[in-house]
Amino acid sequence: MKRLHEILSEYGKSNTVPFHMPGHKRRADILPDWNPWQMDFTEVEGLDNMHCAEGIIKDAQAELALVYGVDASYFMVNGSTGGILAAISSCVKHGDSIVVARNCHKSVYNAMYLNELKPVYVYPTLIEEWEISGGISPEEVRQAIFANPEVKAVVITSPTYEGIVSDVEAIAKIAHEHNIPLIVDEAHGAHLKLMENSPKSAVDCGADIVIQSFHKLLPALTQTAVLHFNSKIVDRGRLENYLGIYQTSSPSYLFMASMDWALDFMQSEKGRCLAKEYWKELNIFKEKCHSLKKLCIMEEDIVGKNEVFGFDRTKLVVSTTCGSIPGSVLEEKLLKEFKIQAEMSKGSNVLLMTSVVDGAEVFERLYAALEKMDGKLVQEQDTQPGADCGEDSKKGTSRVTNEKTALSYYATVTLTSYEAVNAKQEQVSAEDAVGKISAEYIYLYPPGIPIVVPGEMITQELYDIILYYKENYFGEGATSNRRLQGMQDKSMNTLLVVDNLEEK
Amino acid sequence: MKRLHEILSEYGKSNTVPFHMPGHKRRADILPDWNPWQMDFTEVEGLDNMHCAEGIIKDAQAELALVYGVDASYFMVNGSTGGILAAISSCVKHGDSIVVARNCHKSVYNAMYLNELKPVYVYPTLIEEWEISGGISPEEVRQAIFANPEVKAVVITSPTYEGIVSDVEAIAKIAHEHNIPLIVDEAHGAHLKLMENSPKSAVDCGADIVIQSFHKLLPALTQTAVLHFNSKIVDRGRLENYLGIYQTSSPSYLFMASMDWALDFMQSEKGRCLAKEYWKELNIFKEKCHSLKKLCIMEEDIVGKNEVFGFDRTKLVVSTTCGSIPGSVLEEKLLKEFKIQAEMSKGSNVLLMTSVVDGAEVFERLYAALEKMDGKLVQEQDTQPGADCGEDSKKGTSRVTNEKTALSYYATVTLTSYEAVNAKQEQVSAEDAVGKISAEYIYLYPPGIPIVVPGEMITQELYDIILYYKENYFGEGATSNRRLQGMQDKSMNTLLVVDNLEEK
Repeated sequence: MKRLHEILSEYGKSNTVPFHMPGHKRRADILPDWNPWQMDFTEVEGLDNMHCAEGIIKDAQAELALVYGVDASYFMVNGSTGGILAAISSCVKHGDSIVVARNCHKSVYNAMYLNELKPVYVYPTLIEEWEISGGISPEEVRQAIFANPEVKAVVITSPTYEGIVSDVEAIAKIAHEHNIPLIVDEAHGAHLKLMENSPKSAVDCGADIVIQSFHKLLPALTQTAVLHFNSKIVDRGRLENYLGIYQTSSPSYLFMASMDWALDFMQSEKGRCLAKEYWKELNIFKEKCHSLKKLCIMEEDIVGKNEVFGFDRTKLVVSTTCGSIPGSVLEEKLLKEFKIQAEMSKGSNVLLMTSVVDGAEVFERLYAALEKMDGKLVQEQDTQPGADCGEDSKKGTSRVTNEKTALSYYATVTLTSYEAVNAKQEQVSAEDAVGKISAEYIYLYPPGIPIVVPGEMITQELYDIILYYKENYFGEGATSNRRLQGMQDKSMNTLLVVDNLEEK
Repeated sequence: MKRLHEILSEYGKSNTVPFHMPGHKRRADILPDWNPWQMDFTEVEGLDNMHCAEGIIKDAQAELALVYGVDASYFMVNGSTGGILAAISSCVKHGDSIVVARNCHKSVYNAMYLNELKPVYVYPTLIEEWEISGGISPEEVRQAIFANPEVKAVVITSPTYEGIVSDVEAIAKIAHEHNIPLIVDEAHGAHLKLMENSPKSAVDCGADIVIQSFHKLLPALTQTAVLHFNSKIVDRGRLENYLGIYQTSSPSYLFMASMDWALDFMQSEKGRCLAKEYWKELNIFKEKCHSLKKLCIMEEDIVGKNEVFGFDRTKLVVSTTCGSIPGSVLEEKLLKEFKIQAEMSKGSNVLLMTSVVDGAEVFERLYAALEKMDGKLVQEQDTQPGADCGEDSKKGTSRVTNEKTALSYYATVTLTSYEAVNAKQEQVSAEDAVGKISAEYIYLYPPGIPIVVPGEMITQELYDIILYYKENYFGEGATSNRRLQGMQDKSMNTLLVVDNLEEK
């Protein structure tokens, strides 16, 4: 049997260009030459204790807080997940209500589940032409708080997976007017504060707690994250207690060292030079992309509409709408024909993640691939005039409509997720689930935003959305590396719903 | 400013012999030559997904389950902590009761907190001469269930930090008679199943869920653990949901590979040879220790009394009682004079952890140090006849009494920890806390077993125990690397208690 380390080692040698996490992209010429075993310690004399830092870890965290300009920062070894759970839990008691953006990551939903929270959803706008969620409207947050003055926190994600930044400053101001803390899942924004030409980080916009993955867009190891505390409202002791609950009592020193190294590197002369070089190459790449005919890359001009307050340009969203192919086909071709691994595809777009360590070579390789693909699409459409670019393209429109429907669906919350998961349940055939309350999650990973949350009514509209995702991201037929997850019945022939008698 | 990786690297070069975790002990000649960055991946095509394993991770987990002889095994990247939280949560609903051994790790208490559980405690016996907790009596478990038939699970720790194994088979049988699952925190026992001459692992004793740290006694990276599922009672889907909640959605492939490597290594020809060599050297070492006069090492003869069903001989508990010095002094001298780092000291003993990678050289170095220390103690007592070995040794007795008192204290549970932590609270001067209900934890780390749990009455007896620990493990005066943790007021001048009006 081939062991995991052998498989990983082989994969590493496959010369596939990673346009996905982790942000360090295994760039051996930039990364330090570490041996993981030789840096693997425990809390012995002189090496401090992450859960009660008084020495070297305290110093490293103080440096982190200084750089990010916050009251306190914490290393986290259970990813942003651990930080999200701790942040939300620290602001509520079981049974409370919170205002939460519906496009949050599953960890936010898990925090709601653990604390039996009642969600008051605010919905992101829809950016139709790119088939992605836009920003969160501060006005909607205001209305949500006004209608539910009992809420104990506001939770949003900014930037999103695709780089969409909301007006965090305005949202923080509204929350604080009501003495409510704002928690920002900035898992995709640890680099914002460390790289020029970036939108403002939530740490500079008055957010009370900001959680950042360090591995996603900085050169740090997978599973590393930090939490920034900058609040006059949240009880810091309570937050620290929860950080101690959701994270192992044997935290990895290797992880902490990798975060500290990334922080140091980004501020070093070498790191700054690399960042300059990176922006230059990114601009050249984007400039060249203007000459593509059937593929296009999302640009900063999306800012200012759809509540989009800023855009993180490190994210490359490639639309395939004009090419009349699904994003998954482009993703697959990039991998199979050009050895380029994208982060994910959905509907008619592909998401590619770049980071500070990406240089001229990878951008050139990506452009060459896109150019070639683009040329083929032009050729194909010339020979199939029916499948031309535009709103009327049959295949295109069908997919566009489905993706848009899914993104603009408003949930019918009937029970809290805790109530639904712990109620009497039954597995019913998928079609019979319509009209019943879901007792399970259904979500796509990546990025892990739920399509269905336990406690939500499976309306006919939602059922159609589930079917759409099932067709595209389920079973052997799924072409993308995205997968539908969460269902108890892995065959998806049945869905888990709350037993009728238990419904309220 | 010196960065974390530089400090760790320097520490690694200090030639200190680690008799502590992690179990791989940075043995470069045995461990594979990995580069952490080159093995750091995410869930792309072909690399599977830990939270929904269908490929290489599923295969590796199946191999793990096969070796341990269980229905299913799961890699865990948030330490045993994540597994404990998931295991307990999967068996209960908020507000339920469980039978729990009072000498469990803090993560068990955290699981109780999160789920608002009411604890029904069973207390380990006390092994007076070694000042440690003994085993859990199956009869006490039976009585606890009989008196509280509503309990939803039984949770015990076996082996303990010091290697004490309880009669898991008998306890499992009793629990199953009442259709209640048994969860065993076997954080210190991942090696039992993989090494001959070990007591039986809980996976072979009918436990429903067994959680094992892989980094503690096996050659795997810190923060790695596995969970074994072997139950007809526990809902596996529910357990998997909780594993997904308490662990990051970006799990480290490096961690998973290190667990898989350790499993492979332990079964390999090289690993088996090493284990044989290890047992041989351990025996030689223990044999030699018989000639020590003032220090003695705990041996297998403790089995059969105090509900001790088995003993993991890899743990070296050195008693300093006859030497009339506190364990912390021995621990300090071992470090300062002999560059030997123990795992911890408490009362009049020192705990040293050995593992399969320890060979003749380290055992010889340890013996040489103990022999020298022993000689000095003999010499000192010859010149100070008042401080002779024996029950009447004043200094010795005083310490012994205090440690024993602490270990045999029975808690007065007044509120659940969730109620106490979320009640109205006040900081009162330490002496005024007597008669009040604690709203905070006080525990020693390592090993992380609480002295006080929120919701427990601070009786005069408990207050004296707190004072004893404060004297020995707090502030600048603390000589050991053990530290008193959990208190909101880091100065410990005040303690956090439940406001009078909130008491029930």
